[in-house]
Amino acid sequence: MKLTILGCYSATPRALNNTTSQVLEINNHMFLIDCGEGTQVELRKHKIKFNRIKHIFISHLHGDHFFGLVGLISTFRLLTRETDLHIYGPVGIKEVVTLQMKLADSWTNYNLVFHELTSNNSELIFEDEEVEVFTIPLNHRVYTNGFLFKEKEGNRKLDMGLVEDAHIHIAYYRKLAQGFDVLNNDGVLIKNDAVTKPGLKPKSYAFCSDTMYKEAIVPIIKDVDVLYHESTFLEKHVHLAQKTKHSTAKEAAIIAKKANAGILLLGHYSTRYDGLDPFKDEAQEVFENVELCEDGKTFNF
Amino acid sequence: MKLTILGCYSATPRALNNTTSQVLEINNHMFLIDCGEGTQVELRKHKIKFNRIKHIFISHLHGDHFFGLVGLISTFRLLTRETDLHIYGPVGIKEVVTLQMKLADSWTNYNLVFHELTSNNSELIFEDEEVEVFTIPLNHRVYTNGFLFKEKEGNRKLDMGLVEDAHIHIAYYRKLAQGFDVLNNDGVLIKNDAVTKPGLKPKSYAFCSDTMYKEAIVPIIKDVDVLYHESTFLEKHVHLAQKTKHSTAKEAAIIAKKANAGILLLGHYSTRYDGLDPFKDEAQEVFENVELCEDGKTFNF
Repeated sequence: MKLTILGCYSATPRALNNTTSQVLEINNHMFLIDCGEGTQVELRKHKIKFNRIKHIFISHLHGDHFFGLVGLISTFRLLTRETDLHIYGPVGIKEVVTLQMKLADSWTNYNLVFHELTSNNSELIFEDEEVEVFTIPLNHRVYTNGFLFKEKEGNRKLDMGLVEDAHIHIAYYRKLAQGFDVLNNDGVLIKNDAVTKPGLKPKSYAFCSDTMYKEAIVPIIKDVDVLYHESTFLEKHVHLAQKTKHSTAKEAAIIAKKANAGILLLGHYSTRYDGLDPFKDEAQEVFENVELCEDGKTFNF
Repeated sequence: MKLTILGCYSATPRALNNTTSQVLEINNHMFLIDCGEGTQVELRKHKIKFNRIKHIFISHLHGDHFFGLVGLISTFRLLTRETDLHIYGPVGIKEVVTLQMKLADSWTNYNLVFHELTSNNSELIFEDEEVEVFTIPLNHRVYTNGFLFKEKEGNRKLDMGLVEDAHIHIAYYRKLAQGFDVLNNDGVLIKNDAVTKPGLKPKSYAFCSDTMYKEAIVPIIKDVDVLYHESTFLEKHVHLAQKTKHSTAKEAAIIAKKANAGILLLGHYSTRYDGLDPFKDEAQEVFENVELCEDGKTFNF
């Protein structure tokens, strides 16, 4: 699982601060999460192949999270993309994108599929054999979802010494990996867990931005490996956090602790602060394992 | 008159190529012309004070000319702008901007005034004591206007030696500058042109993008000091220019010659070409005084 931070600042793009966008690589998927103005240029800078992006998740319709979307869709068209593109985001996202295509008289030559979200409960919005994506309903000034990306339980790992000792034919190895008991060459039933071990622990990533402190998300993200939680402010500006429905670094850490997250990533910083270390320091008073997002930074988990 | 090229490439923004946007400083006005994605960041890089921009002119609703507009409007709001902002552009521009403000539940705290254009004839769309702006109807795939910015005839310049010799009281100097005849201290009528000279020649700038070759614009831009005319292609790709309703460098030069322009600026280059010199070479076979726009370049006229 690899996460690339294209932008992690709040409000407005600046010469040295990009607004929110991330690329999550998980099980051969390349998911784009949020798409602030300029995201397409950041994708180019990171040499991310546009055709590998098949699913874009938009948390909410504030500009710093989606003003780059229509440009990206338009550029895909100009590059004669043929691959389907799925967009998941709040209701209204289809209207605003299609209106701009209509005004430009520029319809995509690839399938553009909108999945408009309206529910206030966590729901499964994407699933294939290896990955599931759930919404995480957040509490912000407009309708907002975070997203939980979860690998499914993987194949079991064969202990080849035991498998051979048990005289199991190679034709059954796949069944074994899938967790089934099988008959051996002598017609004896071999219990799966006698010759296999659990596979790699499936990984999970939760993206939570933008939101004020919301404890109700804890059960949804319980035991998540990596939690990105916005921390627009420090505690000294908690009054601004409450007024604008954002979180402080401390609040992000409390959520991480209650959810028993593996790692907490902070981001969506207000540009009012001189440096990022105070965010980490404040969060670590509550939760040990904290990392700071920075524009262009890549995390491998 | 000062022109700053924020972006001059066609189609899509890239790491080293911005899409169309220009800032024209003329008689204390700072006019923003077109607004591709990322324009607000370029404005910051050039340290252009946001509050000095009171009028934005959008030629047409293709993304590379206006996808940065809504972000700029949004950033002005976040920076608590109070100055009125006037937007001139094709009908539909108001709907697409206001839809995005509605979805974000983020209305501006300053007056945002849309001047939607529909005419296929050149019309006066802005005027004050010093400057006039006219549309230049172009021929592109969607409804498109160029813009002609013209200084008005300035004050006449007093020849102080002659003025004093003619015994004209200082109270009449302003009248003289405005071109009036005045009475001198002896009650004699002094003809204006006996003691004044013409002021500085008023300057003019024509912005013509995007368009296929359109000779009908020549009378509108006749004798313009500086003509920006798109040159997306070279002549070897004239078939692409015709198909996409763009121009070649040669066609831009023919327009400049027929219009008796002072200088021709080329821009809106396709990124298919390795360098820009061939655009200049091709245009100069027709018209001598050619300059190449480049991102970040400033021209003083």
